[in-house]
Amino acid sequence: MKIGVDYYPEHWDCSMWEQDAMLMRETGISLIRVAEFAWSRLEPEQGRYEFGWLDDAINVFFKHGIQVVIGTPSCTPPNWLVERFPDVLPRDAMLHPKYPGIRGHRCYNSPSIRVFTERIVEKLASHYAKHPAVIGWQIDNEFSLNECHCEICNERFREWLLKKYGTLEALNQAWGTVVWSGEYSTWTQISTPFGGTSFRNPSYLLDWKRFETDSVVEFQQLQLSILRKCCPNHFVTHNIWSYPMSLDYYKLCEELDFASLDYYPGTSPEKSVSGGYNGALTLDLTRGIKRRNFWIMETISGPPGCWFPMWRTPQPGFIRAFAWQCIARGADTLVHFRWRSAPFGAEQFWHGLIDHSNVPGRRFEEYRMLCDEVNRLSPVLAGSEVLGEAAVLHSHDLYNAFAIQPQAEGMDYFDNLKLYHRALTKSGILTDVVNTTDNLERYRLIIAPSLYLLDENLADKLKNCVKNGATLILTNRTGVKNPNNVCWIHPLPGQLAEAAGVTVAEYDPVGNDVHTIRMTDGKTHTCSQWCDILEPAGAETIAWYEDDFFAGKPAVTVHAWGEGKVYYIGTVAEESFYLDLFGNAADESGVTRFAGLPEGVQISIRRKGTASYLFVLNLTRKKQTVELGGVYLSLLREESVGPALDLDPYAVEIVKLVEDDIFRKK
Amino acid sequence: MKIGVDYYPEHWDCSMWEQDAMLMRETGISLIRVAEFAWSRLEPEQGRYEFGWLDDAINVFFKHGIQVVIGTPSCTPPNWLVERFPDVLPRDAMLHPKYPGIRGHRCYNSPSIRVFTERIVEKLASHYAKHPAVIGWQIDNEFSLNECHCEICNERFREWLLKKYGTLEALNQAWGTVVWSGEYSTWTQISTPFGGTSFRNPSYLLDWKRFETDSVVEFQQLQLSILRKCCPNHFVTHNIWSYPMSLDYYKLCEELDFASLDYYPGTSPEKSVSGGYNGALTLDLTRGIKRRNFWIMETISGPPGCWFPMWRTPQPGFIRAFAWQCIARGADTLVHFRWRSAPFGAEQFWHGLIDHSNVPGRRFEEYRMLCDEVNRLSPVLAGSEVLGEAAVLHSHDLYNAFAIQPQAEGMDYFDNLKLYHRALTKSGILTDVVNTTDNLERYRLIIAPSLYLLDENLADKLKNCVKNGATLILTNRTGVKNPNNVCWIHPLPGQLAEAAGVTVAEYDPVGNDVHTIRMTDGKTHTCSQWCDILEPAGAETIAWYEDDFFAGKPAVTVHAWGEGKVYYIGTVAEESFYLDLFGNAADESGVTRFAGLPEGVQISIRRKGTASYLFVLNLTRKKQTVELGGVYLSLLREESVGPALDLDPYAVEIVKLVEDDIFRKK
Amino acid sequence: MKIGVDYYPEHWDCSMWEQDAMLMRETGISLIRVAEFAWSRLEPEQGRYEFGWLDDAINVFFKHGIQVVIGTPSCTPPNWLVERFPDVLPRDAMLHPKYPGIRGHRCYNSPSIRVFTERIVEKLASHYAKHPAVIGWQIDNEFSLNECHCEICNERFREWLLKKYGTLEALNQAWGTVVWSGEYSTWTQISTPFGGTSFRNPSYLLDWKRFETDSVVEFQQLQLSILRKCCPNHFVTHNIWSYPMSLDYYKLCEELDFASLDYYPGTSPEKSVSGGYNGALTLDLTRGIKRRNFWIMETISGPPGCWFPMWRTPQPGFIRAFAWQCIARGADTLVHFRWRSAPFGAEQFWHGLIDHSNVPGRRFEEYRMLCDEVNRLSPVLAGSEVLGEAAVLHSHDLYNAFAIQPQAEGMDYFDNLKLYHRALTKSGILTDVVNTTDNLERYRLIIAPSLYLLDENLADKLKNCVKNGATLILTNRTGVKNPNNVCWIHPLPGQLAEAAGVTVAEYDPVGNDVHTIRMTDGKTHTCSQWCDILEPAGAETIAWYEDDFFAGKPAVTVHAWGEGKVYYIGTVAEESFYLDLFGNAADESGVTRFAGLPEGVQISIRRKGTASYLFVLNLTRKKQTVELGGVYLSLLREESVGPALDLDPYAVEIVKLVEDDIFRKK
Repeated sequence: MKIGVDYYPEHWDCSMWEQDAMLMRETGISLIRVAEFAWSRLEPEQGRYEFGWLDDAINVFFKHGIQVVIGTPSCTPPNWLVERFPDVLPRDAMLHPKYPGIRGHRCYNSPSIRVFTERIVEKLASHYAKHPAVIGWQIDNEFSLNECHCEICNERFREWLLKKYGTLEALNQAWGTVVWSGEYSTWTQISTPFGGTSFRNPSYLLDWKRFETDSVVEFQQLQLSILRKCCPNHFVTHNIWSYPMSLDYYKLCEELDFASLDYYPGTSPEKSVSGGYNGALTLDLTRGIKRRNFWIMETISGPPGCWFPMWRTPQPGFIRAFAWQCIARGADTLVHFRWRSAPFGAEQFWHGLIDHSNVPGRRFEEYRMLCDEVNRLSPVLAGSEVLGEAAVLHSHDLYNAFAIQPQAEGMDYFDNLKLYHRALTKSGILTDVVNTTDNLERYRLIIAPSLYLLDENLADKLKNCVKNGATLILTNRTGVKNPNNVCWIHPLPGQLAEAAGVTVAEYDPVGNDVHTIRMTDGKTHTCSQWCDILEPAGAETIAWYEDDFFAGKPAVTVHAWGEGKVYYIGTVAEESFYLDLFGNAADESGVTRFAGLPEGVQISIRRKGTASYLFVLNLTRKKQTVELGGVYLSLLREESVGPALDLDPYAVEIVKLVEDDIFRKK
Repeated sequence: MKIGVDYYPEHWDCSMWEQDAMLMRETGISLIRVAEFAWSRLEPEQGRYEFGWLDDAINVFFKHGIQVVIGTPSCTPPNWLVERFPDVLPRDAMLHPKYPGIRGHRCYNSPSIRVFTERIVEKLASHYAKHPAVIGWQIDNEFSLNECHCEICNERFREWLLKKYGTLEALNQAWGTVVWSGEYSTWTQISTPFGGTSFRNPSYLLDWKRFETDSVVEFQQLQLSILRKCCPNHFVTHNIWSYPMSLDYYKLCEELDFASLDYYPGTSPEKSVSGGYNGALTLDLTRGIKRRNFWIMETISGPPGCWFPMWRTPQPGFIRAFAWQCIARGADTLVHFRWRSAPFGAEQFWHGLIDHSNVPGRRFEEYRMLCDEVNRLSPVLAGSEVLGEAAVLHSHDLYNAFAIQPQAEGMDYFDNLKLYHRALTKSGILTDVVNTTDNLERYRLIIAPSLYLLDENLADKLKNCVKNGATLILTNRTGVKNPNNVCWIHPLPGQLAEAAGVTVAEYDPVGNDVHTIRMTDGKTHTCSQWCDILEPAGAETIAWYEDDFFAGKPAVTVHAWGEGKVYYIGTVAEESFYLDLFGNAADESGVTRFAGLPEGVQISIRRKGTASYLFVLNLTRKKQTVELGGVYLSLLREESVGPALDLDPYAVEIVKLVEDDIFRKK
Repeated sequence: MKIGVDYYPEHWDCSMWEQDAMLMRETGISLIRVAEFAWSRLEPEQGRYEFGWLDDAINVFFKHGIQVVIGTPSCTPPNWLVERFPDVLPRDAMLHPKYPGIRGHRCYNSPSIRVFTERIVEKLASHYAKHPAVIGWQIDNEFSLNECHCEICNERFREWLLKKYGTLEALNQAWGTVVWSGEYSTWTQISTPFGGTSFRNPSYLLDWKRFETDSVVEFQQLQLSILRKCCPNHFVTHNIWSYPMSLDYYKLCEELDFASLDYYPGTSPEKSVSGGYNGALTLDLTRGIKRRNFWIMETISGPPGCWFPMWRTPQPGFIRAFAWQCIARGADTLVHFRWRSAPFGAEQFWHGLIDHSNVPGRRFEEYRMLCDEVNRLSPVLAGSEVLGEAAVLHSHDLYNAFAIQPQAEGMDYFDNLKLYHRALTKSGILTDVVNTTDNLERYRLIIAPSLYLLDENLADKLKNCVKNGATLILTNRTGVKNPNNVCWIHPLPGQLAEAAGVTVAEYDPVGNDVHTIRMTDGKTHTCSQWCDILEPAGAETIAWYEDDFFAGKPAVTVHAWGEGKVYYIGTVAEESFYLDLFGNAADESGVTRFAGLPEGVQISIRRKGTASYLFVLNLTRKKQTVELGGVYLSLLREESVGPALDLDPYAVEIVKLVEDDIFRKK
């Protein structure tokens, strides 16, 4: 377990390196990430590679015992490259180039960027393969789909489609291009979605997103192959930006050693509670990418700000608490962005741990304390992992399909994912968030939000889980389409109707209109976005609509099937509904939960062998109290705590659980 | 009187046609519209026409007694045509082409689209001229101005101006181009309004709109001539989209047999009452286009949705009630869009009568009932017509002129038209909405909102009506400009000042600020948008402003002139003002009205010879009661109703009036 | 002191000139501005100059004793010029040309516009140099940065940078281009900021703004040189548009004889009070440009309106009162826009003194009264000037730097300037608003808002003022950057920390969140935008934060230094705070103030020799009373007023102060 910072030797006079290294060492930092934007220094002109300055810098830090992760600089092609090889620049849907000036001004399919990227990565990899300070690599920086419409992308897109569909007839058939005379009679009629309009065939648009992901993955693979060959003992990762994301992170990280996340929890006081839950989802998603522990490659050190107004500064305790949240949910290394704020360039108000004044202040003192703690607990926590008992399914295809065709006002795939995950987190249920394509065998409770794109494979996998005793929770908009984004001709939820014991007789996209459901016990909850009017075929109704023309009709059902159960939720209700439903479903299916958590207090568990470490985080500005139900050893305080645990604002507590209780149910 | 559906044989496996035809027949459907987007199937490559599949489809339906309207496919040029002849694509104000992918990607002036359209229309027309199933044609689909800025459009625009003005001197003079050195010294200096800015000469912008309408009309005329020649016994129509519209529908429909409307009343509960009144205006406008009955070529069958979020589903009774509203206001045929929801393409969530599941549901059952009723009443209602007693004047020139130069915050020409028409509809006054250029002799009550563009011809026509006894209601912004969109140098309302007996001393564009007027009887109403400060010259003041520096000044006047009266309303008041004013004006001028209608309940009358059929529609979600003042025969229920008529939500009642009462005044 | 109108002889039939001239003369008008948009009439085709019509017009007015200011027409190049020399048109960041159709369609660096402008200005200047009616010139119209990205501008920008920095190395160093590999290795890699994104190096963006200003100044200088040569006895001015402005007006007006302002105070009732204070700032800024009296070249005559909705009409008294406000704050001549509303063109609803009807109405009568008054008082007021006792510092560089990098939500440099100036105006303190580079020696009280860009020169000048006894008020975001827009590495407020006796330990960009400060006397004020947490080093704390994690920390300090004092305000508080603070600071530093002004009532003083004239303006819709504390002679009423002075809505009072009281303190 390491702690590090992002450092830009090229931003500072080399006379400052030594003192920075010394202060880092003294603070407990053992790692820096460097060079991911430094192409213009590493290759100041075509073919002239200048690594001496970086050698010097790395050596200074190495001398002070600090290891190094090198970023490949392909995110920022230098001006000489762009000037001489303009195919490097991506072109938007109006065919305007994206000009240099910030970052990411490179078309993933550009022949020139590929050639020059391969060259510099090979040079760097060869040069640093044996350097004792260098332990691994980050490829590029925060990949995203860049929606390039250049000629090369157009060609590649056609090739991609040719490979996928084989013939134009198959493509026309799969996409249903007959609508509006959209049938292609030559391949050259197909283009990227020029013009930027969303008035397009949804099958085409979804394939376009998939092609774009594949372009990124291919661009990364070029670099990865070189790194694997030259540096077989180094790890290779990529620092992803946060969710939601059109780019398929599962594909992106498939060949990497682990995922890394750039994590900037919001500092705004209004969002301070919800932000912590969204962060929990982001971290669980990141852990789910490769279903293993990950790195934080950047995280908040001060107020972010740039071309946009600065955020609030992090409250006292905020930086530390959110750093511990990362570890609680599976981060093994924390790299803070950045050591010191940049004095120049577009990001000069994205504050580092140390301000422009170069006088370490309140935030730095807090960071110093964090370093002490992490370094102290590292031997205990190293090798431990987070094992969710429930699973939430997620997919970038679903995200993209819903973005292409919004279903109802206010209905957003990812916002609903947040809602469900927040209810699970508040219920104290340890949750994994995994790809729909993943193996789900070990979960007793599976929440599958809006499996809008559904095929027999996915349906069969889920049905097998249920047959074997799992509880499956389905929602509205399940089974609507095949993977080509074409509607199935069957009653919803289609392939899962039998298992759910229910079909959708009719639906009303109620959008932002608020309706009500009533539970068996008389309790009511508001709902909105969508109302499926259900027709049970074996399932038991557990909630009915209270109003509108579908008053009295079933809204939520449950069906005992095989050894398990299938819930079908035909609407999107307020949080209280999910707290009840998930709590009951967890209890019935034998999933542990830590009940009674105050708003904004989160728990997680890391396990190693038979040892379990419970993290309790107060991610709020208020004092809170949690009932532990027993007395435990606090690893941070090195004293006993409990049964009542008082938590200051942004307090962090880590207790070693007793073997036979995991943690007590309440 | 017919009932039909929009059907896309090319979207379905041909094995489904027969079962669809049988179910249609069983449901009472006697008509389908086909092929209006099927160019890529009708001419899969240049010059290869493939009508066999359509023959097969039509024959299947014909076998089951179903007639066919064919749409010409010029709205969706196929990819091969666009690829080979890129002049087909319109170009926006930044000269970006509109790419294919949805519809309407054709420049009306493109030589290529014209040639290929003529060819395929001639082929289709010749082929289907004698087919016993085919009864008529729809040209293209939902024409609108496409604001094309291609070179051809630029040339055509210059030719159009040359024809209109003869010389540059005349044009410079008419437009006042001397402002800001905008004078043209060669014709080539004139272009379409590139750049998309609205900072332009308003005379130029209004002529640009007129040119655009003429381009559409010319494009339609090419097709119409062919259809007239080849199919002299078939009708030809066009399905217009709703109002407001820059394209001049009066010009568009001049040579057509009748107008058709695509009618999608809003399903949102907040707009459920206002939506019914806006729909009434749309229908009255459509009837006014050719001053005769019309068709509904598309109407709502389920929740619309596409690239935008889906609407609410229609409430029970909604589809039927709004279908009857169409008939009540002059529709002779109803064609519902569409038979079954498309499984693919961009419009797959624009729901048909049958859902993707292909299981007929609640909406289909309601539609089946509608078919029964319409077919049952068809012999009675066929040949009847709607004859408004009052007239509201409307013009696309006015709409465009106000769009070019908004007068005050919150002042919108069409929104005010809605306000006035809604007050008339609520007052139970049968109203026609007609072009300002129409003959108005038969109306006793004429509402002329904001005749901003005014010349002697129009003024004289109105003055003649008043001289002959009509009541004319004028509003603020009357007589401001000549038809070239240039201000008259005269006190407002200019040519109508004498008849109105009043001039505008000064005005205040009050916008969204709310002011008050007080009537002679002390009653007050709020007003906003605009305050003309009036100076009566013979007219009697009937309302005064209550506040601001013009407190105590006249706001509304009436002037007895000739045999009639002229009201001048210098502001835009709240609805209550118009309910009072129009009610009084109707009573004074001998216009019948059905007083006492509850909010959201609409009436209309269709007459045939001496028979009159009163439609009473409850277009709300509530039960309502209407006092008929007598006992009548309900055509739908085939029993007596009245004197009190109880109406369920979305209830429809049609009663035969007794000859000598038309309907009783109340 | 003169009074005039903007007149467009080319808009009217020449038969109307005579009657217009006669009515002007009768009204008291002695001046017209003409021809600034008349290029297409002055040079209808290349090289054919036609000044006869203008001679005729000028002669008509001259005959009636009316003098003339001629505008050079370079703002509206005619169509023939644009057509033949398309380099005239500026190109936006997407390289789209700005098409003719309105105004300002000329790239300042275009070789063609420069050549043709020089030619026509030379022709005009030679022609009118000796005309007895012509007294001066206005160059172009309402210059602004046009953000042109044409090739010429790109070349010129590179030349400008070469001249400024000498070498690419120096430029790379100064801008910190090393960030994100932005280093330039050839000059041709530098371009104008194509693409329109704000994700750019802030140093580069600030230089781009400076280059743009220099382009305008150079374009103006071409014309000015000709005018100086041909018309040595004529004045030359330019009519600036209002603030805030990216274009540096100080540089623009450096070589002109005086500044002129186009002044359109808002008529909206909600903004009627704040509008008067914003206007006061605009006028004080304009007077500060050259630190002398100025002209109003356009001002409100009726409701403005154009392609946007019309504003409210000016209330009775509004036109007159705001005209007097101009004089009160240093205007020596008033030219109203415009004589009569244009019947055609894009600006036809930007109303003149006379409406389209050509019937003089209420507004004209008010204007007539204004003319009488100004002409009557002219002998008394001529030669008097406004001398502020306090100074507010302003700079276009600061404005641009904050626009490039907004610091916090809701924090706006110019809005804060308004806040401070409004508090000064309400406090009755006579205030100059001057460039940060100006000499400040004569001020006892200097408010220096957010000196974000700071160097030793500016710091030393301010320190000298303080040493010599002045009170300096600094705010948050002082000393952040060097003039290259690069952060200093020092504790804030940097070069002024010692004089302020305080440093910023930390800051929180609180944005729109509202916090509270408490003063020494227990009084509290809300604050927002930004909270500096201060660490006094010699300064006395006079306000502390009340909440959040920095509760109890210093927010405002004062430091006695040299003979003077330095206040440091670490946040942006509500107005009440500044009323207290500025009032106290004024009293302590011996700055006179007129206490007790009601909301919306403004005062100013013009002095001539030993005479002082106090202007009291009620710029509200309400009656107000001001305590004069004595009896004075009213110049307008020619009778004694006071000690209580009752003011009707929009009332104006001008009293001659008694020599030995200046005006009484209260």
